[in-house]
Amino acid sequence: MNEVVIVGSVALDTIDGPGGHADDALGGSASYAAYSASFFARARIIACVGPDFPASARRVFDGRNIDLSGLETVPGNTFRWAGQYAPGFVTRETKKLDLGVFAGFKPAIREPLPESAILFLANIDPDLQMDVLEKAGGKAFVAVDTIDHWIKSKGEVLKKALARADIFFLNDEEARLISGEDNLVRAGKKIMGMGPEFVVLKKGEHGAMLFSREGISVVPALPLDDFRDPTGAGDTYAGAMLGYMAREGKRDRTAMRSAMAYATVMSSFVVEDFSMERLRKVTQAEIGERLGHLRELVRF
Amino acid sequence: MNEVVIVGSVALDTIDGPGGHADDALGGSASYAAYSASFFARARIIACVGPDFPASARRVFDGRNIDLSGLETVPGNTFRWAGQYAPGFVTRETKKLDLGVFAGFKPAIREPLPESAILFLANIDPDLQMDVLEKAGGKAFVAVDTIDHWIKSKGEVLKKALARADIFFLNDEEARLISGEDNLVRAGKKIMGMGPEFVVLKKGEHGAMLFSREGISVVPALPLDDFRDPTGAGDTYAGAMLGYMAREGKRDRTAMRSAMAYATVMSSFVVEDFSMERLRKVTQAEIGERLGHLRELVRF
Repeated sequence: MNEVVIVGSVALDTIDGPGGHADDALGGSASYAAYSASFFARARIIACVGPDFPASARRVFDGRNIDLSGLETVPGNTFRWAGQYAPGFVTRETKKLDLGVFAGFKPAIREPLPESAILFLANIDPDLQMDVLEKAGGKAFVAVDTIDHWIKSKGEVLKKALARADIFFLNDEEARLISGEDNLVRAGKKIMGMGPEFVVLKKGEHGAMLFSREGISVVPALPLDDFRDPTGAGDTYAGAMLGYMAREGKRDRTAMRSAMAYATVMSSFVVEDFSMERLRKVTQAEIGERLGHLRELVRF
Repeated sequence: MNEVVIVGSVALDTIDGPGGHADDALGGSASYAAYSASFFARARIIACVGPDFPASARRVFDGRNIDLSGLETVPGNTFRWAGQYAPGFVTRETKKLDLGVFAGFKPAIREPLPESAILFLANIDPDLQMDVLEKAGGKAFVAVDTIDHWIKSKGEVLKKALARADIFFLNDEEARLISGEDNLVRAGKKIMGMGPEFVVLKKGEHGAMLFSREGISVVPALPLDDFRDPTGAGDTYAGAMLGYMAREGKRDRTAMRSAMAYATVMSSFVVEDFSMERLRKVTQAEIGERLGHLRELVRF
């Protein structure tokens, strides 16, 4: 069965912002990506937590098509992040960052994945991404995500990972940073030249662009005038996209475009509440309805 | 015949930027809007210039479906603007602004326009917009454009004009400014509440949003990795949209969406060179080709 194997963080987030407050809520790139992917295909989480990781947080994954056998419990504290969003969600400030057990994370994945699998290297140290790629990559379809921090501190290692990536996710600021180009079209094309066959450039409220050898595609965001928490929207986007591709078993541009539409829908849900709260309630009918909205949005 | 009557500026622009240099090139909101509209319908310019307005600039309109009988020559200097774009077109700085005869502009339009006409009040003093509205509006379909300067200095008068507008064009910064909302969806809805039936919120490289009672539509921008001069892109957008609507004789949301697609295409051309240089060479086949690109862009 086509599986999405996600290497990333499982964390506890404390969030303050215009949408309210959340305390030690389940977060982390792997959590969001796996939860979102599980709407479409089986997702496996490769991550670690401490013994303090609450049973209530683990239970969030119950009943989902998610394999937690790679979620190791090791001595130390679970990765904790605290952030504050400014009014209007204009900026986000990290108030506390305690990597805990994640500082010594050794991804427990050594076997090469089959060709049918999708390996998602979510936002982690590029050295770890390379390590996993060498052990488990090779045949699998490889997706890479990152953040500005790694572009600035480990850009060269990251570029080595990119050279082996099939698809690379990044946002507009990161695209400008890694390419040195202000113009996003030029940035996306330059990043394609770094190796990945597909580049997904996420622009938040302005939607996302797909760069491929066959050209550029655009999927706008669903118009949202009210949301509670944008944390994890990018990971949810990537997770849904890869989950859809795993389910379809296709990796061409056409499948990629449909995958982006589903990803747009799933991330429109996740921001409506903290953590996985909104995703837990999402029905297939709701997904279909928003997909319809999205297609209607660009009917011209 | 359905006509677009454009009240705005005819100016001489001196521009410096990454795309090169232009000296006393034909510019101004009415010039761009009329030139662009004339691809679809008859356009009439209501503006004024000085005796120094060169014959070569006037000749740019030759052979186009543009009525210049309302372009008055009055004593004084033609409106001149000089601007400089920073590398990457990230910012624009006004280096010189000499309103000349435009400072005393009295729009030479007194007769009420027929219902079939579209009246476009391009970027001019809101007091003038109100004056024209009272004399010539009433039956015609009324479009209003503005800039941040008028929102800040004559916001209350502008809002009176908006209350009588059928369609209002503005960019993202202006939308945030006039609505006091950071979120563009909320901003657009709030501006709808000020009167206009349609609000076209232009986001530059991120495309444009249409707000209407029936909902929101999105038309992305055509991806451009190289252009020479973004001056006049907004006026070209509005001109094309209104020209298309005049030609079709329709003012519903469906026509509006198609009009936005054409507007996107026309503004993708105008930025490829200074002044009307690129528009002068545009063929119907090229328009059709880019329209195809645009539709292909959002096929998902």
